[in-house]
Amino acid sequence: MILIQQASLYSGNSALTIKLRTPVIIVNFKAYTESTGKRAVELAKKAEKASKETGVNVVVAPQFSDLSRVAEAVDIPVFAQHIDPIGPGAFTGQVQVDAVKAAGVVGTLINHSERQLKLADIDAIVRLTQAKELVSCVCTNNPAVSAAVAYLHPDIISIEPPELIGTGVAVSKAQPEAVTNTIQLVRKVNDHAVILCGAGISHGEDVSVALKLGTQGVLVASGIVKAKDPYTVLREFADSTKLT
Amino acid sequence: MILIQQASLYSGNSALTIKLRTPVIIVNFKAYTESTGKRAVELAKKAEKASKETGVNVVVAPQFSDLSRVAEAVDIPVFAQHIDPIGPGAFTGQVQVDAVKAAGVVGTLINHSERQLKLADIDAIVRLTQAKELVSCVCTNNPAVSAAVAYLHPDIISIEPPELIGTGVAVSKAQPEAVTNTIQLVRKVNDHAVILCGAGISHGEDVSVALKLGTQGVLVASGIVKAKDPYTVLREFADSTKLT
Amino acid sequence: MILIQQASLYSGNSALTIKLRTPVIIVNFKAYTESTGKRAVELAKKAEKASKETGVNVVVAPQFSDLSRVAEAVDIPVFAQHIDPIGPGAFTGQVQVDAVKAAGVVGTLINHSERQLKLADIDAIVRLTQAKELVSCVCTNNPAVSAAVAYLHPDIISIEPPELIGTGVAVSKAQPEAVTNTIQLVRKVNDHAVILCGAGISHGEDVSVALKLGTQGVLVASGIVKAKDPYTVLREFADSTKLT
Amino acid sequence: MILIQQASLYSGNSALTIKLRTPVIIVNFKAYTESTGKRAVELAKKAEKASKETGVNVVVAPQFSDLSRVAEAVDIPVFAQHIDPIGPGAFTGQVQVDAVKAAGVVGTLINHSERQLKLADIDAIVRLTQAKELVSCVCTNNPAVSAAVAYLHPDIISIEPPELIGTGVAVSKAQPEAVTNTIQLVRKVNDHAVILCGAGISHGEDVSVALKLGTQGVLVASGIVKAKDPYTVLREFADSTKLT
Repeated sequence: MILIQQASLYSGNSALTIKLRTPVIIVNFKAYTESTGKRAVELAKKAEKASKETGVNVVVAPQFSDLSRVAEAVDIPVFAQHIDPIGPGAFTGQVQVDAVKAAGVVGTLINHSERQLKLADIDAIVRLTQAKELVSCVCTNNPAVSAAVAYLHPDIISIEPPELIGTGVAVSKAQPEAVTNTIQLVRKVNDHAVILCGAGISHGEDVSVALKLGTQGVLVASGIVKAKDPYTVLREFADSTKLT
Repeated sequence: MILIQQASLYSGNSALTIKLRTPVIIVNFKAYTESTGKRAVELAKKAEKASKETGVNVVVAPQFSDLSRVAEAVDIPVFAQHIDPIGPGAFTGQVQVDAVKAAGVVGTLINHSERQLKLADIDAIVRLTQAKELVSCVCTNNPAVSAAVAYLHPDIISIEPPELIGTGVAVSKAQPEAVTNTIQLVRKVNDHAVILCGAGISHGEDVSVALKLGTQGVLVASGIVKAKDPYTVLREFADSTKLT
Repeated sequence: MILIQQASLYSGNSALTIKLRTPVIIVNFKAYTESTGKRAVELAKKAEKASKETGVNVVVAPQFSDLSRVAEAVDIPVFAQHIDPIGPGAFTGQVQVDAVKAAGVVGTLINHSERQLKLADIDAIVRLTQAKELVSCVCTNNPAVSAAVAYLHPDIISIEPPELIGTGVAVSKAQPEAVTNTIQLVRKVNDHAVILCGAGISHGEDVSVALKLGTQGVLVASGIVKAKDPYTVLREFADSTKLT
Repeated sequence: MILIQQASLYSGNSALTIKLRTPVIIVNFKAYTESTGKRAVELAKKAEKASKETGVNVVVAPQFSDLSRVAEAVDIPVFAQHIDPIGPGAFTGQVQVDAVKAAGVVGTLINHSERQLKLADIDAIVRLTQAKELVSCVCTNNPAVSAAVAYLHPDIISIEPPELIGTGVAVSKAQPEAVTNTIQLVRKVNDHAVILCGAGISHGEDVSVALKLGTQGVLVASGIVKAKDPYTVLREFADSTKLT
C-alpha cells in the first residue's frame, strides 16, 4: 500500500508543500567503490527499476561529483549526502545548495553520523532547504536528539544508532524501542515529519518490521551498495514495505 | 614563452611523473553564482578559449557537483577544490578521491584558506594524490608555512595571504616579499614544486609582476569569476605571462 | 523577590535535583585580560560581594586554568565555560568533566556561540552533567534552536542572538520577541528548565526588562568584565532583578 | 650525562633564548583518573622527586584545570597540553595563552595526535609561544610531517606514530627508522630544535634506545600515569637516560 503524504514545509507565511511519497527507501551511496562514478549510475538505475516495478518511492544519495550524472540518468529522486550552511559566495571546497540543485538534486541528507554538524548549522541548513524547496532529511542518533530535531521542522527525520551502522544488525530488530520512542517523542511536537530508521538494515524483514514499528520507511547503505546483487535486495526491501 | 616542467611526484621507489606546463593560471571557481551549474561550464569554455589562443596552461577548479559536466565540456585540466583524506568506504558527505577522479579531475586544491586542514591531513592528502596520479596544489598563508609544506612534496605550492583574498589588491604588488621569501625558503628543500601566488590578482600586470618575482603562475578566483567579461580578463592574464 | 526553583535534573529513574536559585546572573569571564589569572579571582570576589549584599544568585564562569583558584576564593557557584563529551581516559588537550569538577565547578556553559558544538555532543554533554550532578546551561541562537535544546533537558537554556553579543545592544530590548518566543516554545515541552537571555546586556534596565519578558535571569560577559567598575554594574544588575 | 642545550627561539631580530635542559622526559597527564585533581598534584610530586634525585629534566603536562595547583606544588617545569591560537579577548571555552601562563606554565604541547590542529594554527601557536616566551613542543606523526614542522621553528619536535600510542610497544624499538628519519630530515633545516619521540614508551630500555637513536628525550603518558608505581617507573626512565 503506497501512501501519499504531504510533507508540508515549515516556512512561516508560505504554503509551500513537497510531495514525498511514503513508504520511502533512501539509499545512501556513501563513498564505496561499488557506488562511485559509472557504478553510481548503474546502481541508481537498479534502484529506479526496483522503484518502477513496485511503485515504492526509492531515493538515491550519491557522492557530490556523481550527482549530475545520476540525476540525468534516472527519474527517481536524487539527494545529496550533505550540504553546507552557505549560499553562493567566496567559499572553496564547500557544498553549496545552488550547485547541488543545479546538478538535479531534490533533497539532502543532513547530519549523518559520518558527517555530524553543529546544532546551529543543522537549523541553518534546514531553513536553507526550505528556502530552496529541497527535501531535508536530518539523521539523528537517539530518540532525544530526534525530538530536538523535530523542532527544527525538517521534512524527514531518520534515527540511526551509530553503533549499528554497517553491522548488518538491523535497528528495527535490535533496538525497536529506539524507533518507537523516537516516533512517540517526535509526534508530540511535529505531526508532519516523515520518520525513518536506519542502521544495519539488510533483509526485507528488517524493512517490514521498521514499518510495523510505525516508521514510514528506511535509510539504507551497505545493505544495498555492498550486496552481491543490489537490485534483488532492493526489490526485496520494496516488496517488504507492502507486507505491513 | 611557455616552459615545460616535469613536476616529478615524490613517491619513493616509483618513477611516476606528471607534466604540468608552466606558466599556469589556476581559476578557482569557488561557490559563486557566476560559476555554478551551467555557468560553470560556460566559464570553463571561456578559460579553454583563452588557453588555446595563447598556449598558456589554464586550469579550472569548479564545485564538486559541477566537475563531471565541466570535465566533459572542455579539454583543459580540471581540478577539485578539495578532497578528503580518505579512500573508498563507509563515508557520508565526504569528497573521496576516486569519485572526483571518475568525474574527470586531474588534480586538486588542498588547504585553501577557506578550507583549511589539519597538518596530518594535508600530508595524507598529498600522498593520496601521488598514489592516484593527481596533481596536488597546496595553498599556504605565509612563507614559513610554504616552507613547511615543501617538505610534504606537493606538485604545486600556492602562497595566498588570507588578508588579501577577494580584495583586488594583488599579493604580487602589495606583498612581493611574501612571494620572494616563499620561493627562497621552498627552494632550499624542494627544487621541483611549482610555486604560484594568489590573492587579489585582478590585472594583467599583477600576473606579470608575479612571474617576475619568480613564480610560475597564479591562482585566481573573483578576479576572473566576478569580472564583467571573464574571457577578456583571462586573456589579459594569459598574455601577461609572456611579458616577463 | 528571590525565588527558589527546583531545577530537577532529567535522569530517568533517579530523583536527583539541584537547587538553582533564580533570578540568576551568570557572568561569562571569556578570555579577557580583565578576567585572567589574579584578575579572575578579583572579579569573582566582586561578584560574590554583589551576590551577598543583594541575595541574588550570581554565577561566575572563568577560564579553565583559573577555575580552581576562583573556586577556592569565593562561595558563589563557579561554572566552566565548556566541557568536552568525554569521561576520563586517553585524551589530550580536552576538558574532562571530572577535572573541572575536582577544580570546584558546579556547572558548565555548553554550546556558547563562541564554542559551538555538534548536536550529538550537546546531548552527550548534558547527559554527562546529569551523571556528574553538574548544572548544565546550554546556549542557543534563536527560538527554534532553544526549543530543540529543551528536549535534551538541560537545567538552563540561555538564548543569545550572536549578532548582538558584545554590542552593548541588549537582546531584551532589541529582540524581545526572540526571548518571548523562546519561552513559549520551550515551555511547550519543558516546564522545569531555567530560561535566561544574553547578548548586549549592559544596563540594569536590560536586566529588569529581561525578567519582565519572562526569563529567570541573564547571561552576561563584556557588560561586566569590561566595565570600568564591574562591582557597581553587577550590583546594579542584581538590584534590577528585584524591580520586576 | 646531562646536557645543557640552548634552544634558541626563532624570533627574527631578537636574541631571546630559553634554557631547556636535555635529556628531557615530558609526562603527558592526558585526562586519566590517575592524573586528575589531587592525583595530578601527587603525580607531579613524584615526577619532581625523580627529577631532583637524578638531575634529569622532567616536565609534567596536566589538564588545564589542574595547571595552577600543580605549578604551585612543584618546582619542575609545567606544560599545558594545548593552547588555542588566540590572544586575550571575546573567546569562550578556549585555552588562552595568558591564562595558562598566569597559572604557571612554561610551555605547551601543540598538535598532539589526540588534539590535531590545522597547519596555519600550528604556525600561529608556535609564534604565540615565542612572543610569550613559552617553550613549544609540536607533536608529529611521521618523519615528513616532522620535517615540515621543523620549518615552523618550535623549540621541541616530538615524533609519535599514532598507531603505537597507548600500546606499550615502544616507538624506539618498533619503528627506529621513524625516529632516525625524523632526526635526519629535521636537522637538514633546523639545528636547534630538541627532538623527542613518544608512543608506547614503557620501559627504561625504551628510553635509552630512544636516546641512542639520537633523540634528546621522550614524551610519555600511560607508561607513567597508568603504572602501578609511577615514581619507580619514572625513576627507571630517568636513570636510563644516563646509559647512552
